[in-house]
Amino acid sequence: MPKAFRLRELAEHVGGTVRGDPDREIRGIATLAEAGPDKISFLTNPRYRAEAEKTRAGALIVPPGGGVAGHDLLEAAEPYLAFARLLELFHPPAARPVGISPSASIGEGVRLGDSVAVAPFAVIEDGSSIGDRVVVGPGCVIERDCSVGEETVLRPRVVLYAGTRVGRRCLLHSGVVLGGDGFGFATSEGVHHKVPQLGRVVIEDDVELGANTTVDRGTLGDTVIERGTKIDNLVMVAHGVRIGRRSILAAQSGIAGSTSVGPGSTFAGQAGAAGHLDIAEGVVVAAKSAVFEDLPPGAFVAGIPAVDHRRWKRAQVVFKKLPELRAEVRKLRERVAELEQALGRSEEADS
Amino acid sequence: MPKAFRLRELAEHVGGTVRGDPDREIRGIATLAEAGPDKISFLTNPRYRAEAEKTRAGALIVPPGGGVAGHDLLEAAEPYLAFARLLELFHPPAARPVGISPSASIGEGVRLGDSVAVAPFAVIEDGSSIGDRVVVGPGCVIERDCSVGEETVLRPRVVLYAGTRVGRRCLLHSGVVLGGDGFGFATSEGVHHKVPQLGRVVIEDDVELGANTTVDRGTLGDTVIERGTKIDNLVMVAHGVRIGRRSILAAQSGIAGSTSVGPGSTFAGQAGAAGHLDIAEGVVVAAKSAVFEDLPPGAFVAGIPAVDHRRWKRAQVVFKKLPELRAEVRKLRERVAELEQALGRSEEADS
Amino acid sequence: MPKAFRLRELAEHVGGTVRGDPDREIRGIATLAEAGPDKISFLTNPRYRAEAEKTRAGALIVPPGGGVAGHDLLEAAEPYLAFARLLELFHPPAARPVGISPSASIGEGVRLGDSVAVAPFAVIEDGSSIGDRVVVGPGCVIERDCSVGEETVLRPRVVLYAGTRVGRRCLLHSGVVLGGDGFGFATSEGVHHKVPQLGRVVIEDDVELGANTTVDRGTLGDTVIERGTKIDNLVMVAHGVRIGRRSILAAQSGIAGSTSVGPGSTFAGQAGAAGHLDIAEGVVVAAKSAVFEDLPPGAFVAGIPAVDHRRWKRAQVVFKKLPELRAEVRKLRERVAELEQALGRSEEADS
Repeated sequence: MPKAFRLRELAEHVGGTVRGDPDREIRGIATLAEAGPDKISFLTNPRYRAEAEKTRAGALIVPPGGGVAGHDLLEAAEPYLAFARLLELFHPPAARPVGISPSASIGEGVRLGDSVAVAPFAVIEDGSSIGDRVVVGPGCVIERDCSVGEETVLRPRVVLYAGTRVGRRCLLHSGVVLGGDGFGFATSEGVHHKVPQLGRVVIEDDVELGANTTVDRGTLGDTVIERGTKIDNLVMVAHGVRIGRRSILAAQSGIAGSTSVGPGSTFAGQAGAAGHLDIAEGVVVAAKSAVFEDLPPGAFVAGIPAVDHRRWKRAQVVFKKLPELRAEVRKLRERVAELEQALGRSEEADS
Repeated sequence: MPKAFRLRELAEHVGGTVRGDPDREIRGIATLAEAGPDKISFLTNPRYRAEAEKTRAGALIVPPGGGVAGHDLLEAAEPYLAFARLLELFHPPAARPVGISPSASIGEGVRLGDSVAVAPFAVIEDGSSIGDRVVVGPGCVIERDCSVGEETVLRPRVVLYAGTRVGRRCLLHSGVVLGGDGFGFATSEGVHHKVPQLGRVVIEDDVELGANTTVDRGTLGDTVIERGTKIDNLVMVAHGVRIGRRSILAAQSGIAGSTSVGPGSTFAGQAGAAGHLDIAEGVVVAAKSAVFEDLPPGAFVAGIPAVDHRRWKRAQVVFKKLPELRAEVRKLRERVAELEQALGRSEEADS
Repeated sequence: MPKAFRLRELAEHVGGTVRGDPDREIRGIATLAEAGPDKISFLTNPRYRAEAEKTRAGALIVPPGGGVAGHDLLEAAEPYLAFARLLELFHPPAARPVGISPSASIGEGVRLGDSVAVAPFAVIEDGSSIGDRVVVGPGCVIERDCSVGEETVLRPRVVLYAGTRVGRRCLLHSGVVLGGDGFGFATSEGVHHKVPQLGRVVIEDDVELGANTTVDRGTLGDTVIERGTKIDNLVMVAHGVRIGRRSILAAQSGIAGSTSVGPGSTFAGQAGAAGHLDIAEGVVVAAKSAVFEDLPPGAFVAGIPAVDHRRWKRAQVVFKKLPELRAEVRKLRERVAELEQALGRSEEADS
């Protein structure tokens, strides 16, 4: 039996306003295509307006004034946030499991907090510290002298190399590897000599790391992901990098060694940054772009190498028409040569 | 003792035609460089013709009329397919293992089909259903309420998050993670609030997923990989994506959230598509390219952003010569200025 | 109690020269920012000269003549190599663990060398051979008939598919998958038929492979990583590839099937190479670039497609200014038209 709420209750829950029937009963939240009359759906991306006009949903979450005729509306100043909160209301997170599996392997001197869950075949090595209400999924490996803060969840098969620090309320998805050796070699006469990697990985509070993402330990200093930063799947963060708080790294992006990224920055999918850069706060790097220079605060860049986003866009428009541009230049050359001839001038300048 | 076949038997097996000695005895299949007189090799890529002329192979699989002097030939309309079938003939797949390891962890209410194999340290959580003849490799984690169809093989260390559906005859390589949370956040005053990810991952029949590839669950709807699609290593398929049947995603490619890719499409290596796109059937995206717009059926695109493949190629040719083009434009400017002077015109237009 | 050395002892250890007080006591090595008077730091990247001038470090490793006023100096011809050696001196590697965990799973006919360590929940299948002093981390899976050479270390959760060969003194980081099926399909009438992948992965001596990197087995021949090559995280090496000795593949780079890369080559981050290429020795491919053609020895290339690095750089400079170049061409066209008119010529040439 799903939960049911009146539309006005939902509006109160998210601080929004009802346009239409405040007593309409809503029993869930669904996509525009799948919602029926007892469901609320949402229009947060104008791309889907046509679909919104045809939806059978009983109500829609919309931005103020973003209404769609024929539906009861829940107007919210931040409709996507309202959507997230109603999802939680209808689907509260499952209770965390509790207890230590007898088929986990727990080392000596391990500190386990209250209400911890450790799943089968997890390994926690000597001297590590696991905070209250932490969940360690099946097959995770926490090497020696790590610490994991309260309420952090490690999904199956996460690996923390020795000395890694993870903050509170983090979510680490399957296949994450924290603390692998930074990729540092001193090359002499063609032979690559390994540079010992002695720093740590430090993940602050409220960080999420996507599946199969890797963060390498620093050579001497630490590699740090500051609080509130969210990182998607298959991302690479190299040794000695610092990612400022509340940043976003989308899937398959990568940050090379010793680069610092300021708070509130965004790397879109498959983007990258070279090493030893100083990237300021609030920077946005477009998908598939590559940063090769320091960036000032608030820069929005695109391209390889990344330049100002508008400049890149205008250049791209011309790029597509380069064959035509070249043809035009050739034609002009002919016309100029004809003019020169008509004026009796030699064509010495022709190249 | 390797198997031996007459060349005509091999031709019958693949529906091909012998040019040369039908009774030649063939005891295996090998590369052009390594094959000896009792082996058959193949010439399916014209790049290797010079090598084919020097091979010691006793026979060659070739396309009709694609012969190489001095060898017995097996002509096949689809020589690469014939090659695949002969490989199977000489190297039939090993028998699947059967039985549940005593060191696997099986939850309550798990349904295990006939002749299932579950390897050591695999975890199958409550309520999941494993079809007949399925192989679950060492260290795999199948969370609660998943289903895995008949004859599907999970190689070591595959993770299925709760609720994931995998069809029949699929092959999931090591490190695959299905059902991780979609990368969805509602950002308010710089704080990224997690949007619950409630959809599932649905993998239809006959799908292959490469090592360390990740497919995220949808926010509300499902993320779907349709039947017969083949995905290479380290690929990212984001939340709410649908990949049409019999498509190909090569290594390190990525598809962002809510994008739909039509059947029979191909993404080459390190290619990508932005989110919320409608990419039609039979599309080809060249290696390292990035799709930022909807694509019509049969489009063949390249570049960042991806444009028609021929247009991109022609533009690239000019791109390489941009310094020369600019020099030519400067030279023309000088010549035009000289002409203007000769005609007594002011140079007001010069920029 | 940290180790202490005189500066002259450190200089002797690395074959360098002291400029300043040879008796200064040094108790460790630290970054420019964190080093105190009893620590040695280093200036190997000129980018950090300003920071070096402010450091509190008691001494600095510098290149010959690369001094910084006010510090005792250790001049070394290869300062980064000297830095690596001093790191090892102050932080000798921990002793390798030894012993077979009772919760590991060891198959039949497995050969285990002397002083081997096998961690909990590791699986070694029938017929595999593990050399002396090898470490097999928690949750590793070594399928049947593999061999691992002396002193090689497998960090947690490495997977070797059947038949894989790993040489001596290798370091394989967590999540590495060796021997997954090459991505080979024979497509007939839209259906992708799997081509059996029967070759092996062969990793020679002194190779390092980063976290979650994958190397696929060859179709018939082997995929080979030659000795001394170092590969970073999340790299893809496809079937039938050969990477020459002492090469470098940085994070998220990828090499497509059957391509051969010569010794001493470098692929920077997120770079790639198409399949069936012959890339010679000593090649450098810039970050984010994609090689689509054979390359001669010593080539240094950049771009998509990759061209000579200097050509690419010069073209990029013009690319950014394409809108201005186009505007200039349009202006020239107008000026030429005016000249033509002034001379009484028709404007037939205008396009």
